[in-house]
This record gives sequence, C-alpha cells and structure tokens, in this order.
Amino acid sequence: MSTRTLIRGGLVVTAADETHADVLVEDGRIAALAAHGSQDWSADRVVDATHKYVIPGGVDAHTHMQMPFGGTYASDTFETGTRAAAWGGTTTIVDFAIQTKGRALREGLDAWHAKADGQCAIDYGFHMILSDVNDGSLKEMDLLVEEGISSFKLFTAYPDVFYSDDGQILRAMQQAAGNGGLIMTHAENGIAIDVLVQQALSRGESDPRYHGEVRKALLEAEATHRVIKLAQVAGAPVYVVHVSAREAVAELARARDEGLPVFGETCPQYLFLSTDNLAEPDFEGAKYVCSTPLRPKEHQDFLWRGLRTNDLQVVSTDHCPFCFVGQKELGRGDFSKIPNGMPGVENRMDLLHQAVVDGHITRRRWIEIACAAPARMFGLYGQKGTIAPGADADIVIYDPNAQQTLSAETHHMNVDYSPYEGKRITGRVETVLSRGELVIDQREFTGRAGHGAYVPRGISQYVG
Amino acid sequence: MSTRTLIRGGLVVTAADETHADVLVEDGRIAALAAHGSQDWSADRVVDATHKYVIPGGVDAHTHMQMPFGGTYASDTFETGTRAAAWGGTTTIVDFAIQTKGRALREGLDAWHAKADGQCAIDYGFHMILSDVNDGSLKEMDLLVEEGISSFKLFTAYPDVFYSDDGQILRAMQQAAGNGGLIMTHAENGIAIDVLVQQALSRGESDPRYHGEVRKALLEAEATHRVIKLAQVAGAPVYVVHVSAREAVAELARARDEGLPVFGETCPQYLFLSTDNLAEPDFEGAKYVCSTPLRPKEHQDFLWRGLRTNDLQVVSTDHCPFCFVGQKELGRGDFSKIPNGMPGVENRMDLLHQAVVDGHITRRRWIEIACAAPARMFGLYGQKGTIAPGADADIVIYDPNAQQTLSAETHHMNVDYSPYEGKRITGRVETVLSRGELVIDQREFTGRAGHGAYVPRGISQYVG
Amino acid sequence: MSTRTLIRGGLVVTAADETHADVLVEDGRIAALAAHGSQDWSADRVVDATHKYVIPGGVDAHTHMQMPFGGTYASDTFETGTRAAAWGGTTTIVDFAIQTKGRALREGLDAWHAKADGQCAIDYGFHMILSDVNDGSLKEMDLLVEEGISSFKLFTAYPDVFYSDDGQILRAMQQAAGNGGLIMTHAENGIAIDVLVQQALSRGESDPRYHGEVRKALLEAEATHRVIKLAQVAGAPVYVVHVSAREAVAELARARDEGLPVFGETCPQYLFLSTDNLAEPDFEGAKYVCSTPLRPKEHQDFLWRGLRTNDLQVVSTDHCPFCFVGQKELGRGDFSKIPNGMPGVENRMDLLHQAVVDGHITRRRWIEIACAAPARMFGLYGQKGTIAPGADADIVIYDPNAQQTLSAETHHMNVDYSPYEGKRITGRVETVLSRGELVIDQREFTGRAGHGAYVPRGISQYVG
Amino acid sequence: MSTRTLIRGGLVVTAADETHADVLVEDGRIAALAAHGSQDWSADRVVDATHKYVIPGGVDAHTHMQMPFGGTYASDTFETGTRAAAWGGTTTIVDFAIQTKGRALREGLDAWHAKADGQCAIDYGFHMILSDVNDGSLKEMDLLVEEGISSFKLFTAYPDVFYSDDGQILRAMQQAAGNGGLIMTHAENGIAIDVLVQQALSRGESDPRYHGEVRKALLEAEATHRVIKLAQVAGAPVYVVHVSAREAVAELARARDEGLPVFGETCPQYLFLSTDNLAEPDFEGAKYVCSTPLRPKEHQDFLWRGLRTNDLQVVSTDHCPFCFVGQKELGRGDFSKIPNGMPGVENRMDLLHQAVVDGHITRRRWIEIACAAPARMFGLYGQKGTIAPGADADIVIYDPNAQQTLSAETHHMNVDYSPYEGKRITGRVETVLSRGELVIDQREFTGRAGHGAYVPRGISQYVG
Repeated sequence: MSTRTLIRGGLVVTAADETHADVLVEDGRIAALAAHGSQDWSADRVVDATHKYVIPGGVDAHTHMQMPFGGTYASDTFETGTRAAAWGGTTTIVDFAIQTKGRALREGLDAWHAKADGQCAIDYGFHMILSDVNDGSLKEMDLLVEEGISSFKLFTAYPDVFYSDDGQILRAMQQAAGNGGLIMTHAENGIAIDVLVQQALSRGESDPRYHGEVRKALLEAEATHRVIKLAQVAGAPVYVVHVSAREAVAELARARDEGLPVFGETCPQYLFLSTDNLAEPDFEGAKYVCSTPLRPKEHQDFLWRGLRTNDLQVVSTDHCPFCFVGQKELGRGDFSKIPNGMPGVENRMDLLHQAVVDGHITRRRWIEIACAAPARMFGLYGQKGTIAPGADADIVIYDPNAQQTLSAETHHMNVDYSPYEGKRITGRVETVLSRGELVIDQREFTGRAGHGAYVPRGISQYVG
Repeated sequence: MSTRTLIRGGLVVTAADETHADVLVEDGRIAALAAHGSQDWSADRVVDATHKYVIPGGVDAHTHMQMPFGGTYASDTFETGTRAAAWGGTTTIVDFAIQTKGRALREGLDAWHAKADGQCAIDYGFHMILSDVNDGSLKEMDLLVEEGISSFKLFTAYPDVFYSDDGQILRAMQQAAGNGGLIMTHAENGIAIDVLVQQALSRGESDPRYHGEVRKALLEAEATHRVIKLAQVAGAPVYVVHVSAREAVAELARARDEGLPVFGETCPQYLFLSTDNLAEPDFEGAKYVCSTPLRPKEHQDFLWRGLRTNDLQVVSTDHCPFCFVGQKELGRGDFSKIPNGMPGVENRMDLLHQAVVDGHITRRRWIEIACAAPARMFGLYGQKGTIAPGADADIVIYDPNAQQTLSAETHHMNVDYSPYEGKRITGRVETVLSRGELVIDQREFTGRAGHGAYVPRGISQYVG
Repeated sequence: MSTRTLIRGGLVVTAADETHADVLVEDGRIAALAAHGSQDWSADRVVDATHKYVIPGGVDAHTHMQMPFGGTYASDTFETGTRAAAWGGTTTIVDFAIQTKGRALREGLDAWHAKADGQCAIDYGFHMILSDVNDGSLKEMDLLVEEGISSFKLFTAYPDVFYSDDGQILRAMQQAAGNGGLIMTHAENGIAIDVLVQQALSRGESDPRYHGEVRKALLEAEATHRVIKLAQVAGAPVYVVHVSAREAVAELARARDEGLPVFGETCPQYLFLSTDNLAEPDFEGAKYVCSTPLRPKEHQDFLWRGLRTNDLQVVSTDHCPFCFVGQKELGRGDFSKIPNGMPGVENRMDLLHQAVVDGHITRRRWIEIACAAPARMFGLYGQKGTIAPGADADIVIYDPNAQQTLSAETHHMNVDYSPYEGKRITGRVETVLSRGELVIDQREFTGRAGHGAYVPRGISQYVG
Repeated sequence: MSTRTLIRGGLVVTAADETHADVLVEDGRIAALAAHGSQDWSADRVVDATHKYVIPGGVDAHTHMQMPFGGTYASDTFETGTRAAAWGGTTTIVDFAIQTKGRALREGLDAWHAKADGQCAIDYGFHMILSDVNDGSLKEMDLLVEEGISSFKLFTAYPDVFYSDDGQILRAMQQAAGNGGLIMTHAENGIAIDVLVQQALSRGESDPRYHGEVRKALLEAEATHRVIKLAQVAGAPVYVVHVSAREAVAELARARDEGLPVFGETCPQYLFLSTDNLAEPDFEGAKYVCSTPLRPKEHQDFLWRGLRTNDLQVVSTDHCPFCFVGQKELGRGDFSKIPNGMPGVENRMDLLHQAVVDGHITRRRWIEIACAAPARMFGLYGQKGTIAPGADADIVIYDPNAQQTLSAETHHMNVDYSPYEGKRITGRVETVLSRGELVIDQREFTGRAGHGAYVPRGISQYVG
C-alpha cells in the first residue's frame, strides 16, 4: 500500500470539473492533483493516461450478489460479481443484506458479512432490507446507522415475501427521520399486481411478456406517489429504486417541484431495453424479466430527461443475475415463477458512456449519476465518487475511443447470457485502481478476492 | 294519488334553468310546466309559490340511518331520519346497506330493506358496502346492479372493519367496469392512520382534537390518488366520498384534467366547520368527530372552488348522528373510541342556500350539487333531481327570504346537539311534496312513515 | 304571431334534461311543456315530432357575414348567411361589428346594423371588435353594454390590422371588469408569427400548408396564457375564441384549476379537419386557411377532451367564407395573402350531432356547447338556448336517424366549396321555428329576410 | 506573476467537493492541490488558511457599472465597483455593454471597453444589450460570440428604452440558436406595466411603494412564460435575469419539468428584502427601487426553494447603485422617475454565506450559485468558478466564523446607503487572490486599478 503511483497526462473528469491533470496516489489515497507536468513527481509506478479519461471508480448502489430468490440464488457470488464489477470500472458496490421475517436485522447482516468477507475484489457496503418492521427492528435501525448501514429498503411489492404495509413503511420512515437513515423503496402496488398476475395466468397468459403487462406503469406511479406521501408525513427523505415508468418519473418531478427530499434511481436496462425484449420468442423474453419490468420504448425518453433534469439522480444496476438455463427456465409455463433479475454490474459504466456518445447526457453528468451521486446519496462521498486529495484512490483509466461489443462470451459475470448481446459500445475501461492497487491493468485482471474491504457509510449527504 | 296539484307563481329553479312557471302535478308526477298564468289549469289543490323558489326535492346520496358503529347505532332511524330530511327539503336519500364479512351481499341488503320498509317519509335507495370482496360477492354485484343497487362502497380506511385491500378494490372496480356499477371509496390511508392513532394515544393525546391531527390531509390525498389509479387500471369510474382536504381536491382536479371519469363529493361540515370545532373544550369537540375529519379553515376555500369548477360534483351529508350523551361520550379519554359521524340530513339544503347568499355558488349550482348531480350520479335523474314533465313530483317550495336559526331545540333529527347550533340562515323550506303528496305543508309535517318508497336505481348517468 | 303551435311526441333535449314532452308555443314563446298527451291542448298548427328530437335552436356566437378582409368580403351576406344558418338548425347568430381605427365604436356598430337590418332570416346580435382602444372607445364600451352589446373582441394577432398591444388589452379588460362586458380574444402572438411568415416566404415557402406551419401551436399557447394573466390583473373574465392547439387547451385547464373565470371556444373545423387538409395539392389547401390554423390530427383528441371536461365551453363556427375562385385565389404564390376564413354556419349542429353518434360527447352536452352555453356566455340565456316556458320559441325538430352527405352542391351557404365535401352525417334538421314561426318546414325554407330581429344582450351569465 | 503561492491548511470548498487540501499557485494559475502537508512544497508566499474556507472567487454575472439611466449614471465606476467587488470576494464581473438604438453593437461595446480598460481591480467580461434588433445587429451577434461576447440581453420591459417586441426577441433567439449565444431576458410585461404606472400616478399614488404595486408578479410570470415559449419556437436556450416572483419561479419549474433549456437568476435583494422596505417612510423606500421590484416577504421561500431545486441556477447582484441624495431623489413625487437599481456587488458572497448559516442552502450550493454556475452559464468555467489545476488562481480565503455588520459607513461601494444597513452577518472575506495576486490581504486592499483584465468568454457550458 505504500506504493506511490502517478497517473499522468489524462483528462480528469469528475461530476463538476474536467481538468487536464496528473494524479498522485500515495498510501491508497489520492494525494494530489497537478496541472500536467507542473510538478516533478517521482513515483514507483507511472500510468500513462494520455488521450484517456481519468475518472472516479464507479459506485453501484444496487446489487444483489448470490441473493436467494424463489428457491434459487443469484448466480454471481461476491467473488465473481465484484470481479466483474472491477472489469467494468466499478470500484464500490452497495449490496442488500436481508432480514429474515421474525429474526433480527443483525442476524441478516451477519449472514451477508459472512458471504462477502474475504471474497471481494473491490470495496463494498450494505443496505439492509427490512422484512419485518416492529419495535425490535426499529430499534436496531439506530444501531445499524451508527455502524455504517445507513439505508434501509422496504417493498410495496412482493406480498408475503418482502412486502411491508403502509403502516410499517411509515414507522420505518419515522425512525429514519430520527436517526438519519435513508429509506429506499421498491414502489409497485404488489397487492394489485398479484390480482392481475392471477387473472393473466387464469387466462392462459403464461409467456414472459405478460410479466410486463401485469406490472402496470400506473401501479408503479401509484406506489411512487404513496411512498412520497408517507415520507412527507414522516418528515423523512425517500429514495425510489429502479424507476422505469414515465408516470413514476412524473411523480418524482412533482415532488421535487414542491421541494421535497425525494430521490430516484433508474437502471441501464430501462434506458436501453424495452417490452420488445420481453416479447422475444422461445422463452428468450425470460432473460429480461425483472421488477419493476421493462417498459415500452417510449418511456426511455422520459428517463433520459429525468436524468438530465435531475429528477432522477442515480443510475444503479439492480444486478441480480440468473442463468437462462436452469434458473430462468423455472418459469416456463408460468411467468410468475421466473426469477426476477438481470445482470449488469459490469456494463453500467460503458452503457452510460455510450449515452454520452449518443448525446443523452454530458460527460460530467455521466460521472455524476454513476459515481458521485450514488456516493453522496449513500454517505460515501469524499471517500468514494470523486477524484480529490484525500479520497480513496479508486480510479479508472477510461479509453473513450476504444470499440467493444458486449457479449456473454466475453463478459466476466457468472451468467450464461448478456441482455446486451451484440451491442456495440464506444469506450472501454483500460485500467482500474482500487485504493491505489491495480485491479485491472491494461485489461488484465490483477486484483484478488479479499482486497475489497467493507466500507461503513455515513448518513446520506444529499439530505441535511 | 289522483290529486291534481297546481304550484302557481313561483320561480322554478333547476340545475339549468330559472323559469317563471306554474307547475302542474298529476298522479304523483310533474305533468306540465307553463308560463305563469298562461294555461287555465284547474286543480284539486293550489299551492301559491309567489316570491318563492320552486325547486326539485333534495337528493342526499350519503346517509347512514341507524348504522351500527363500535357497539352502538346511529341515533336516527329510517323513520326519524327521513322525516327530518323532509323537513329540510330532501325527498330522496340513498343509504348504505352493509355486507357482513363472510356473508352474502343479499343478506345485508335484506336486513337494510327490513329496517327501512314501511318507515320512511320520503323515497329511498341503497348503495351496498362491500366488506368482503371475493368471487361470490363479485358475482352478486351483477345481480344487484340489475335490481337497482348500482353503486358499491369500499374503504381504504378502517382496517379490520370495512377495509378492503388494493387487490380487492381493483377487483370490485373491474367488476363494476363490466356491469355498469359505480365504485364509491372512502379514501384515507387507514393503515398508516392507525399507526398515528396508536402513537398519539401512547403520548397521552386522547382529546377529540387529535382525531383531526392523526387523520392527515396528506393521507387523504394519498388514498384519493391511489383509488384513482386503481380505477384507471380497471377502466372504471370512481366516486370519492366526503372529500375534505385541499390536497385531495387537487388529486381530483388532476384526474379531471386528464379526462378521467373521477368524481368527488364533499359535505356541509367540511364547508362550514373546521378543526377549531374539534378543539372545543370539555369534550365538546367530540360532536364534530367524523371521518374524513374536519380540516383547518383554509381548506374551505379550496372545497368551494372545487364545487365551482366542478372538480367536486356532489354535496351529500354523510348523515350519521350519535348523541353526545351516551354515545359520543364512549370516547372520553380515547378519541379513537368516539363514534364517527355527525347529523346533517335536515340542514344541507339550507346551508347550501346560505352559500348562495354568501356568494360561494350560484342558485343553479345549488340545485345542481344538491339535487341534479347526485340524482344523475346514482342513476335517478329524470325521475329525481329536476322539475320536468314526467319526473316524480318531488318538489320544494323554498322561501329565499325567510330567516331561521339552526338549533338542536328546533331540529327534527333524533340527536341531542346541532353542530350548527345558533347559526343564522337566510332561506327556509316552506312546503314539500313527495311524489305529489304534501309531506311538509307550510311548515307542518303532513307526511307519514311508509309513504316513502324504495327506489331502484339505474346505472350512473354521469358515466357512459 | 298569435299562432298557437303544438309540437307533439318528441324527445325534448336541453343541456340538462331529456324529457318526453309536448311543447306548446304561443305568441312566439314557449308557453308550456307537458308529458306526452297529458294535456288536451288545441293548436292552430301541430308539428309531429314522434321519433325526433325537439331541441333549442342553435346559437352561433361567432360569425362574420360580409366581413371585409384583405380587399374582399366574406361571401355570405346577412341574408344568405342567416338563411343557411336556419337550414342548419341555428336560430341566433352573434356577428362582429368592427370599429375602424380612429373612428367611434358607434360608427362601426351603425354600419353593421345597416348591413343586417331587414336582411336576416333568424335573430342576431353583435359583438364589437375594438380596433382602437383609447379613452373615447373605452367610454363608449359602457354605453354599448347598456344597450346590449356586452362583449368585445381584441386581437393579439394581425399587427397593423386588428392588433391591440397588451396595454390596450389590459385597459379594455379593466373597463369590462367595471361594466360587466366580456372580453373575447383572438390569442396568437401575431408579432412573432409575422416574423415567421416573412422568413417562410423568403425561403420560397408560399404554399397554403405553410400557413399552418408558421402559426405555431406554441404561439397560440403563449398568447392564451398572456391574455389570461392580463385578465387576472384586470380582475376580469376572458373568453378565448377559436382555440385549436392542445397547448392552448392546457393553458385554459390550468386557469380553470386555479378557479379563474377563463372560457374557451373551439370550432368544428378544428375538431374534424387538420393540417392534412392544408396540405391538399393544387392550392386546394387554401380552402382550409383560417386563423388560428388547422392543427395536426393529434390535437383533435385534446379538443374533444376539453369539451367533455368543460375546459372548452362553446363550439362556434367562426363562419367567414371566401369562394375558392376569385377570393382564396388571391393568395396563389403567397399564402399570407389568402383570405382567412371558412364556411360553417350551416354545418355546426349536424357535425356536433355526428360527434354524439361517434361517442365524443353526450346528447345533452351537444345542446350545451351549441345552444345553452353560448347563450349563457353572451347574455341570451332564458330567451335563447333552452326549451322552457317563457323562452323564445326557437326550436328545431331534429331527426337523429336521417342520413345526409355534406356538399357544396346542396348546401345553402354562398360559397363555392364545402370543407366537408362528401362527409356522411347521421342526423338532420327537419323543421325549424324562430320565435314560433316556421322558417324551415320539413326541409322547405319558409322563412324570409327580415323576420330575424336584432337581439340586445345582457351581460354574460357565466360570470357573476 | 511568477510568484509561487501556497495556501495551506484550509478547507477547499467547490460546487462539488469539500477537501482538506493545500493549494499551490504558480504563474497566476492553480498548479496543484494536495492533501494537507502531503507535498513538501516551497513557495514565495504562504497563506495560512487554517480554520478557513478556500473558495473560488465569486463570479457576479450581472453588474451595471456607471450605467446611464434616466439622465444620470450608476454611481460606481468600473474602478470603484470592481474594488468593492474584490472586498466582497468577487473576482470576476460580467457587465452589460449597451447598444444605442440605430447604432452598431460594436460601437456600444467599444464604449464599454473604453470605460473599463485600465480601471478594474478584478477581471471582467461583457454581455451585450440589444436595443435594436435588425439585420445588421443580428449579423454582428455572430462576430461578437466569436470574440467572447457570448450572451445578449433583451427586454420585454422599458418601452421606448430597451424594449424589444416579440418578433425582435424571436429573431435574436433564432440567431443565438445558430451561433451558440445565450439570450438573457428582463421578463416583465412593460407595456401593461406602463398602463398601470400611469393609472397609479393619475390617482396620486406617487410614493416608492407604488413601484412595487404596479409591477405585478403576474406580469413578471406572464413575460417569463412568453420568453420561454419564444425560445422554444426558436430552438434556443433562455436565461431569465433577476427573477423575483414565485409565479415566475413556477414558470421556470414548469419549463424545466418539460426538459427545456431554461435558466433563472435571482439576486440577494429578492432573497433578503421585501415590499416592506419599499414602504419605508420619508421616501426611504426609494433606496429599494429596482426592477423587477421587491416582492412581499412570502415570495422569499419560493426563491430559496428554487435555488435548492435548481430551478434557479445563479445568484447575481444586478449591481446598479444610485445615491439616495441627488439620484434617488429625482423621483420624489413620481416613483416612476426614481432611478432603478441597488448596490450589492460587495455583499453577495457574505449574504449567501449567511444563507448557509441560516440553513437555506448547503455550503457547496453556496459556491455553485455564486461561482461555478455563473461561470458555467456564461462560458468561463474551468478558468473561473472552481479551484482545480489549470484554473485561474482567483481564490478567496473566507473566515466562516467572523462576525460583521453591513453598513454604508464601512462598505466600499460608491453609494451613500446600504440596503442592508445594520444587518449582522456571520462570515467574512479575509484574503483574495486574483490570478495569483493578492488584491485583498488580510482585509487590506492591495490591488490596483488595471490589474483586472478583460476576459473573452466561450459559449455557455450549460447548453450543448
């Protein structure tokens, strides 16, 4: 760790600035930035970044490594998933520890620590999923915030699994208002959706595309509005995960117009894929089954607009891969049995750079939604998400002119398909440092399981 | 019934027209209207309406006669309540029959028929409260629509009592979309409110005014938005009862701007009373406990505006009286035990005429929101709610210049207080005909229990 | 005039009621309505309306008979135009008298009286166009209101012709706020449009379709918002004529949501025609040149919705025909020289009945937007726009099942084309009474020039 | 200029980051940032910033030094005004060069260059006021953009002075859409306001407070909406200066919700002062006469909210001082003759820091609205507005704990009153560098007229 690294000649791009600067790394942290060549720095290792971008490592605030779901597990372990993340220029993930109903938060958290400990190639933190809001778990929230688990996810979807009723959500929000935690919500009206699911199945509509039809945009908008109002009653901020419907974006915009601390995340799959994919024949649509579901193409424009107007602040992946063979196939003949989730942790930085190339967002906004804003939202900023003296040396050398084609054949995620199979991308990660160590070096993986450390988080820096 | 009555010399005011016309009544119906004195009509009985308004009898689409609530019963029976209605110029009520959980709709409806049969001074119909949405009750809805029960009420409030979950509401709306029924909703987030109730009580906040504080306007707005979205998914219209919060009116206006078939009702108590009343000392606030609750005064302007812009279409009473002594007192020391409800069936027409005098609404709008729109909303128009050839001769001779003072001492409702005690009103009912029979004659009650007949209703005339 | 006429067996449809009633007409007025056959009325003349609608005569609040425009005159005189109106079931028009710049209102009004006097087949009133707002003309407004000219039109369009600047519009609105007059506005940003016209012409874009392109929807929305704000500053109501753009409807809806006395009119051409017509080859597009211009088809849905939600209250015609040969042709090679205007006074009632058949509006709403609302808006209601004792006997017997095809070959307007050529319509006017006199009798014209009388109007009955 | 300066031990605050870093300045630019003490830098001069903030110099994008207005001149020259700016921590101003009607832009620009040249203590750029939009001036715009005058101001206010009609504004916007320029607008309906001014004066309402009453918030909102629609037609961005009314903020928010490139600026006077000041007795209200005018206090919350939600991006001063004695007094007896304008260039950074202390905005947002956003908006970012290698060394050492009292006795602006007289502020500028030179050194002025250089600007970095 006492290595001194100099990254020379690149364009340092952060959420705020684009600077032609050399970056000096010492002891795993960024020590200094200087105008190209202005300082006569010696170093143990010099990385040439000429004609490259030097950007903060990506922060993916929404992953589910080896998550149990419907009798199976997400196919990426913390080891394979974080390695793939590194390949894709992401140097921090925040995964979700899960409370088991009837058990303590601590127990769930310990289980997730055990899964991740010593396995990760990059740093990681945890959100906590609240499956059982009661006096005990509410009290535990305070402790968890203090020790660096400062965000908690609740579901208006998935009755009988993760679902919390509005009273439970309200109580959790009230608790968060007191302890500085941030409530995250999966906002779909799961109770109403389950009625539509049963009706569809009883009509014989079992194909994956019906997954998209029953989980209606209006029911995402409804639940989004509902959690906003509950947060307003509680006097708490709220963060809505994986927003996919234009009607839900409209609810976020309305809240923002009123000055409420309401935040939204979307994911690359909603920006680049659509119900057209869900309708692919031969059960291929199952590859694209996730919730909230993919929407008709015309929703994409409204998501891009939301990202530009800052009604959406963060792009995460909701990385939760299931192999087509053996996993997705569980839902043949009944779309409701398809494991929900898609891979993506490796593709996010590239897909969003493609969005820069396509003119959807600016270069700085790319870094903001993929690095700075998620770090700030979840209490990591300063340490993660930017390139500034004192910050962790999580740095990506990004070649904006390289060409690549996304494919399951070449990706590093442990899943047998790519939702973006064949997609051409301009731009590619070349080298990645995690706390000063090279984990990807000129497109060689040089990291190791166990390098990645657990990162306790502070309270959200968007709020207060 | 073969009496021929001539109402001479008055100003006939309907929702659309103000006409100086004589009205001829034959066989319980309006036979003809003619310009004053233009026809040489003979009659058995001549009512002089010179300098008076001749208006359609009021239609109160929301009453709860002798309704069971929390171990007691609303204090007006169908006999006392409909007599009081007649005194107040209302000639039709639509009351709510209640399904008992686990039992058939039919059983509840029969019970209500039994209560009302032979008791009523004026005509009456029934809505049906769905307490238990399931395959059986959904099927029964179709039958009830056919036989004249064309509207069904569901609650997002009152968990464990009337509460339906969003899936049940959706299913009922889908059924209504098919059979022409109209879903009415009590829109408050009862699950979240119950949390706030318990928190307030545990803080020792037991006074009636806390009833107003815990049932938050935002939670009315939330549920209003929710039922609108569910209705949109179902492709059904929805009618929101007793709207009291400006934020809820805003949701109705937003839906209307989108062209959705969404309707709203408010009540006189929300237009004329406020949380100031709930805060009256010595437990007097209990007199004003109803749900949705009274709101701070500044909400009133938005309700009046909603009535003018037609974002609110109907003013009903939600008449559900409980005596202060012995009934409201059940909630001393615990506001959540106060029976919810207020008297009003006798006062509605007068209070709304006062609103004409005060400049809130026009004379024609008075008749529209109190007679024509409720009749149309609930499938009675043509027969009720207007003065036109062929319509039932439900007619009120109204003296717009008379002065009166509202008081429990003089009112005819079976309840020991008036929420409007001492309020001065300009305007008074003078004479009332129900299907051509005098039930109030120059401020004498000349009607009788049993004159009032059950009225089967068609489907809503606002919709389709 | 002392004829007594009985209209027997029809369905009387007004804005509020649908009544199976006989209608008795005496001395040019409606004397009485009675349930079919209930009264044993004798009459000089009996009109059988069995299976027909009996509706109020149409009120067309926006016509321009023989109006001077760009060196020519609208091709219908008061004689030909009002005869055509009668054929189409319209029994009252309100035409626009024009102030000449630098001259008194009175002078313009006198000129229009002279044109109309003794010529009209049906009744008529006048609005006044203010071309020159100054101390003198403002004072004259008060006098005109008193004598029955209670509405005044100003233009944000047509610089150097009818254009008033915002200060003049504000002053006129302030005056109207005091005298009860209603300001009507043609709301397009004419100054900006003229820039776009010149730019288009200089690019060689001279075809009629460019008329639609330069008069942008956003510039209609802009001016609509502007006149609403000016009216709000003045404390006056405002009525926006010939609304054609969805963005303008949105401004009206926004104002209405705020409870402002803001009203809007659209015309059949915007509901049934589109920019596709403006693009017809061989200069045929010129037939459809009017301002505001026709819009792309997708705007129509928003206009229909506005009519249903009452954000638009009135459908008038803006009847202002110019023959294709010799008049429209003046603009060959320069769309800005095409006389602006289209025929329509004869087609409005039929086209709107077709909209009933097509499901856009209800039967009662048809009468409301075509008869009752324009009458009420312009101070004629009670006398015109309804069927009630005391009202003028302006009555149409309408056959809802007849089939017809619109065509210049068969229409009675003095113009050599029909914008609806070949359009099939279900429904047809059969018989028309104007103040009790038959002017169309079983599709024979039995009226005469000079029967139509000037009608002084009261102040708007929508306001105050 | 070859001095090497080290700023040691401070907290570097930029729009994005808060970093404990030393800042090395070489040759007038920022050479490097390093974690405190991590680099062993030698320097000619060491500034100790321990316990202080190290922030970018302020960028005031709206000043009017020695501007002619109504026969007099703004009392600050470029010399006195820029010196005062330096005292207040502002290191760049963008002033307005004025085109004289009938003359070339170039002539106006040259005149302003002549006024500023050799006089300024800090750097300065120019916007250009377009008083006369025509073919010639439109062509000149292209040249000016190329040479660093990339923004152009037009007025919907001040008829006969700066006023442009909507066609001229549209043409200028079209030109800007082509050449990358940014149109700035003073958005008030000046034509309507002039009517209200004359009416007020004719009623004898001559006191300064009537200035606030006639320039109505609704007329600011109207013009704001109008310029937004014109910009939308032109396909150009627009920047609205000195937004003061909540209704205008609402228009900006609406545009932003639609994703339009619409930007807004407010000023400290609207955030801290109100119509209460305009109503101060003895003509003292004249001190607060500026346009747009001060608004009632309740508007302030909406401005703060707009700054937090980024519906308002920039806080400038509109610095345009006139002495009370001899200048403001020109309007005794006629408020319309009071020179419009207030001092402020020295107070902005402090007042906005007070807003941080008061909890209205965060520390980073302070720097964003006062330094980074104005720099970015007007094409200066990278060089100005941030602290990053390569940027100009325009740096302020700010003591966040110092206490001061604003007063005309102690301020350095050339004006005989302070609108904030007696106001207590927490925070104070201690030391200021302009391109590496000390211009304020521990609250001594060490700068000089002529140090400040003209800065040509690129095109807006908010756009494209």
